[in-house]
Amino acid sequence: MIIVMKKGALPEQVQAVIGRISDLGYRAHVSQGAETTIIGVIGDERRVSENVFHMMSGVDTVVRVLKPFKLASREFHPDDTIVPVNGIRLGARSVAIIAGPCAVESRDQILESAWAVKEAGGHIFRAGAFKPRTSPYSFQGMGIEGLDLLAEVRQLTGLAIITEVMAPEQVPDVAATADILQIGTRNMQNYNLLHAVGASLKPALLKRGMMSTMEELLMSAEYILSHDNPHVILCERGIRTFETFTRNTFDVAAVPVLKELTHLPVFVDPSHAVGIARFVPALSLAGVVAGADGLLIEVHNDPENAWSDGAQSLRPEEFDALLPRLLQLREAVRQ
Amino acid sequence: MIIVMKKGALPEQVQAVIGRISDLGYRAHVSQGAETTIIGVIGDERRVSENVFHMMSGVDTVVRVLKPFKLASREFHPDDTIVPVNGIRLGARSVAIIAGPCAVESRDQILESAWAVKEAGGHIFRAGAFKPRTSPYSFQGMGIEGLDLLAEVRQLTGLAIITEVMAPEQVPDVAATADILQIGTRNMQNYNLLHAVGASLKPALLKRGMMSTMEELLMSAEYILSHDNPHVILCERGIRTFETFTRNTFDVAAVPVLKELTHLPVFVDPSHAVGIARFVPALSLAGVVAGADGLLIEVHNDPENAWSDGAQSLRPEEFDALLPRLLQLREAVRQ
Amino acid sequence: MIIVMKKGALPEQVQAVIGRISDLGYRAHVSQGAETTIIGVIGDERRVSENVFHMMSGVDTVVRVLKPFKLASREFHPDDTIVPVNGIRLGARSVAIIAGPCAVESRDQILESAWAVKEAGGHIFRAGAFKPRTSPYSFQGMGIEGLDLLAEVRQLTGLAIITEVMAPEQVPDVAATADILQIGTRNMQNYNLLHAVGASLKPALLKRGMMSTMEELLMSAEYILSHDNPHVILCERGIRTFETFTRNTFDVAAVPVLKELTHLPVFVDPSHAVGIARFVPALSLAGVVAGADGLLIEVHNDPENAWSDGAQSLRPEEFDALLPRLLQLREAVRQ
Amino acid sequence: MIIVMKKGALPEQVQAVIGRISDLGYRAHVSQGAETTIIGVIGDERRVSENVFHMMSGVDTVVRVLKPFKLASREFHPDDTIVPVNGIRLGARSVAIIAGPCAVESRDQILESAWAVKEAGGHIFRAGAFKPRTSPYSFQGMGIEGLDLLAEVRQLTGLAIITEVMAPEQVPDVAATADILQIGTRNMQNYNLLHAVGASLKPALLKRGMMSTMEELLMSAEYILSHDNPHVILCERGIRTFETFTRNTFDVAAVPVLKELTHLPVFVDPSHAVGIARFVPALSLAGVVAGADGLLIEVHNDPENAWSDGAQSLRPEEFDALLPRLLQLREAVRQ
Repeated sequence: MIIVMKKGALPEQVQAVIGRISDLGYRAHVSQGAETTIIGVIGDERRVSENVFHMMSGVDTVVRVLKPFKLASREFHPDDTIVPVNGIRLGARSVAIIAGPCAVESRDQILESAWAVKEAGGHIFRAGAFKPRTSPYSFQGMGIEGLDLLAEVRQLTGLAIITEVMAPEQVPDVAATADILQIGTRNMQNYNLLHAVGASLKPALLKRGMMSTMEELLMSAEYILSHDNPHVILCERGIRTFETFTRNTFDVAAVPVLKELTHLPVFVDPSHAVGIARFVPALSLAGVVAGADGLLIEVHNDPENAWSDGAQSLRPEEFDALLPRLLQLREAVRQ
Repeated sequence: MIIVMKKGALPEQVQAVIGRISDLGYRAHVSQGAETTIIGVIGDERRVSENVFHMMSGVDTVVRVLKPFKLASREFHPDDTIVPVNGIRLGARSVAIIAGPCAVESRDQILESAWAVKEAGGHIFRAGAFKPRTSPYSFQGMGIEGLDLLAEVRQLTGLAIITEVMAPEQVPDVAATADILQIGTRNMQNYNLLHAVGASLKPALLKRGMMSTMEELLMSAEYILSHDNPHVILCERGIRTFETFTRNTFDVAAVPVLKELTHLPVFVDPSHAVGIARFVPALSLAGVVAGADGLLIEVHNDPENAWSDGAQSLRPEEFDALLPRLLQLREAVRQ
Repeated sequence: MIIVMKKGALPEQVQAVIGRISDLGYRAHVSQGAETTIIGVIGDERRVSENVFHMMSGVDTVVRVLKPFKLASREFHPDDTIVPVNGIRLGARSVAIIAGPCAVESRDQILESAWAVKEAGGHIFRAGAFKPRTSPYSFQGMGIEGLDLLAEVRQLTGLAIITEVMAPEQVPDVAATADILQIGTRNMQNYNLLHAVGASLKPALLKRGMMSTMEELLMSAEYILSHDNPHVILCERGIRTFETFTRNTFDVAAVPVLKELTHLPVFVDPSHAVGIARFVPALSLAGVVAGADGLLIEVHNDPENAWSDGAQSLRPEEFDALLPRLLQLREAVRQ
Repeated sequence: MIIVMKKGALPEQVQAVIGRISDLGYRAHVSQGAETTIIGVIGDERRVSENVFHMMSGVDTVVRVLKPFKLASREFHPDDTIVPVNGIRLGARSVAIIAGPCAVESRDQILESAWAVKEAGGHIFRAGAFKPRTSPYSFQGMGIEGLDLLAEVRQLTGLAIITEVMAPEQVPDVAATADILQIGTRNMQNYNLLHAVGASLKPALLKRGMMSTMEELLMSAEYILSHDNPHVILCERGIRTFETFTRNTFDVAAVPVLKELTHLPVFVDPSHAVGIARFVPALSLAGVVAGADGLLIEVHNDPENAWSDGAQSLRPEEFDALLPRLLQLREAVRQ
């Protein structure tokens, strides 16, 4: 941490800051410049808040130097983390494909969609039994009944299952059915949920909050990792900006940046990012060449009659056409 | 809902849309323009999703006409809602003052701060026992022990208490101590929490998500109201933008806009909005003249040693100086 | 400037950075920490780019310490700048009122609006002769003919005139008519225009870019000030965010923040900030109590028939009712 | 255009709106719903402003139906526009490579960089003679002398030249040297400049404003096109968001969206979008597979000593390694 004193700060103000640093068990290193005095705080700054110094007389700004995340950082764990799920290895650019509809709607819908995903070559099936919806008047998911249908999908198709968990008390039920617990964008900073998912020791896919920085995403991953649960997958799914033509703005640069900052697998969800099915293929390709370890793609057997997110769901035949192109590109960029 | 067909849409595509409208139990009203055909959907559109039509061939855009919230709307309930708390009436521009430190840190700190708030003329005491923190390495609050200290503050000072609840399972404990349950900005769309708070029938203060629209805030209020819990207070606390000098951007216009859209009380939290104590007085004044029904102001007996948010906390003497100015302005704008 | 070396940077990398600092005529101050080495650059950093160091091996981050603006800074010029215009002193919280329609449309419209502004007690008349419009198919302003009408308004009513200038070549004509040259939000970083307005030595009102930071606003002011033209007025007019209910988001906190950073007068334009006439009074009051030195308010003699921005224009009688409330508040907060 | 009346609007208010529509030469189509009345405006809405109706009593919202751009629209001109430059055809996914340093700094620097671009297989050389800089204290470009050096580069290497023009009065000089006039992000809505560039009849590359929507970008293109200058190239170069790790947020989805909305070539500038050289290759690949017609890539012969933007410039050997990968991907996605 670096403390920049105000121009004209008094010697006793500088001394007070040095004293406080020392009281907290750190060492101070003072640089006397022409216009300002700069004081370095030597020690593990993760355990001290900027505020301690911000409020002191004569202090202009306080700058953190170390990244605030540790277990998630590439420096702490240089090799790529691999998350093994149902015989598939997620991470290290394996480009795994998670696909399926937004929500479990019925046995027919879910089985038909799942077989389509499997036949096209998808690896993991996604569908929500618990649905976070902006409106209390919208369909909120089939709940436990939906989980039972997902268990059946798993048994019949052999596909691994990922589904969303919305509250700590749902974790046992969801963990009993799903191979991967999904934490949605609105819950990225639901810390009680992060703790519960961490403690479950199940693999977790953590979606970036639509309003969250990459650093905040890594801090939320840190909550799960701190329970000795190493299997966290990050997912870029679009952020909220001033542009309204697309549902969100797909931050494709987050892929290479996160891959540098962290050892965790980085997936992308182009369906939620853009919100319009006909643009999903182009963005899926972009995600793969940018270095994504996998994709989440919404596929529905009958998008026009989907109860939610139909506008961004591919039809089975569109998904079928996209998959070989994704895998071909994976090879092209691997070389 | 209005459906705009693409330029050159075929008659059979128009017919298909009309058929779907009819199947869903609505009436269609067709306007044939020079370049486009526009179809109005007549009926309560809150029960149908845009997606149903978005996906159909020949459809260009779908526009909602009705506001998606109902119980929260001024049209549904023209008179201002008053939330009675401990003999105080919140709402209808009473300009109630909620104040206190970010977190419960110790018995001395909390009692000293509470007496300062009471002596200055504050109405309700705030302090967090459960703290949502970006980092798992930061102080997470005193938990149940903190609630016990708040109960003591209540008994000794007679001040009503507001404190944050972070998860459904905490609702009974927090509701046993607090007069108002606070839902934080990161939990505005934690729907399980909204349901649990709604069902508690306790007054709730719902903070706007830092990247949520006013409409989304009202939809989240709708979740609580749908449990026949009428006592919801909205709170503007700054939104996230590209500007980094201030902690957030205080959306003061949200005050008059929300007061027009809804009957619920609208509070502002200038401390979190700006994040720098010396700017809190100016923004508090701005909130009052913009029409806020009350304020949340961070006050700490010793900000330099606060465990969190010290940089945005007023000292007791600063709070003491601000309060009469706020009340004077309230009178000035009431006339 | 502070250079933070990467964890594990080699001694020769540190030496290379120190060598570069020295070559550039600065002094280096090295702090050796447990995890990182920090190097302070001693000297006037405004003349060196971060990039010089960013690119060097072993460098993690480079942090500027000094503010990049100088002539605009409160440190450089502690007293409030007063801009004298037509016998009025703008600045130092005089709360001057600039009002008028978006555009000059006709002699009748402009004269009727101007007399309404004058009779209500407004100080300066605004109306655009050159209009920056998103669409080439929209009304682009009356141009020189509009300037002539403004000159007539000035002569007949005695009101000072402010009007927008869009290009360097328009500066002479606009400067011949107007008392204050307005630079619009889309031109805040039109550097050739800033130079031309600076060189004209006329007072300038510089609107904040709708997606520009306060620091960038001050840097643009610096362009004008660098021509020895001290008469720059800053204007907060709303920034672009994800919220779409209002036209822009009124960043009221910019008022006290800018007043601290700079000695220049700070005005607000609530009409453009919110874009809806019925919310303009509340935001005008908020601007005044937040410390604004003046306001720009759109007033049109017949808003329903305005050629542009009618939806945000007050009628003369609404403006008439607002003005005494603004002045009363000014007194209330001055005490 | 669709006009939605308020719930409970009076019949005479509806009649007044209908009357106004008729007065303006349009036809009205009224849909009487259960809760609201909706009125369609039949005719070319590009010539009428929403404001005309917004202000009328009883009106709730006004929604535009037609896109406001025409000459730029794919509907108006279904085939891809090809911009011929120096024997190269830009557009229709030819993936042309524009490369070079941020600024002209010296004869040696510019020639060395240009030969590196040419040898690697780049098609067009870029470098700025006029530089828009946030600070008046930063290097502002070599001006006319820089143009002369670019003319020499052109003669010696045979590469076509693109360079930025910042003001209408610079257009003749820049047009005499450059094959393509670049309009920078800060000037996207500098309408006088757009008119001047349009009138020059030279090909123009129009960068998206960092704060501008895709629709606004197309409206600015419309200004140039309205001068019968058909050769406009659009360029996505990153938008400003709350994320600060990268310089801007690369809106890769803009590529397929713009390609659908318009017939104009769409380029991307990953260097400015991300601002960090080591992430430029991944984003370049992403741009190509998303459908970009070409790329702008910053390449400098000595980035560590660049006067500006060094941190985002590739070294010649990095550019050399990237180019074949881009062209290989172009083939892969073409199939």
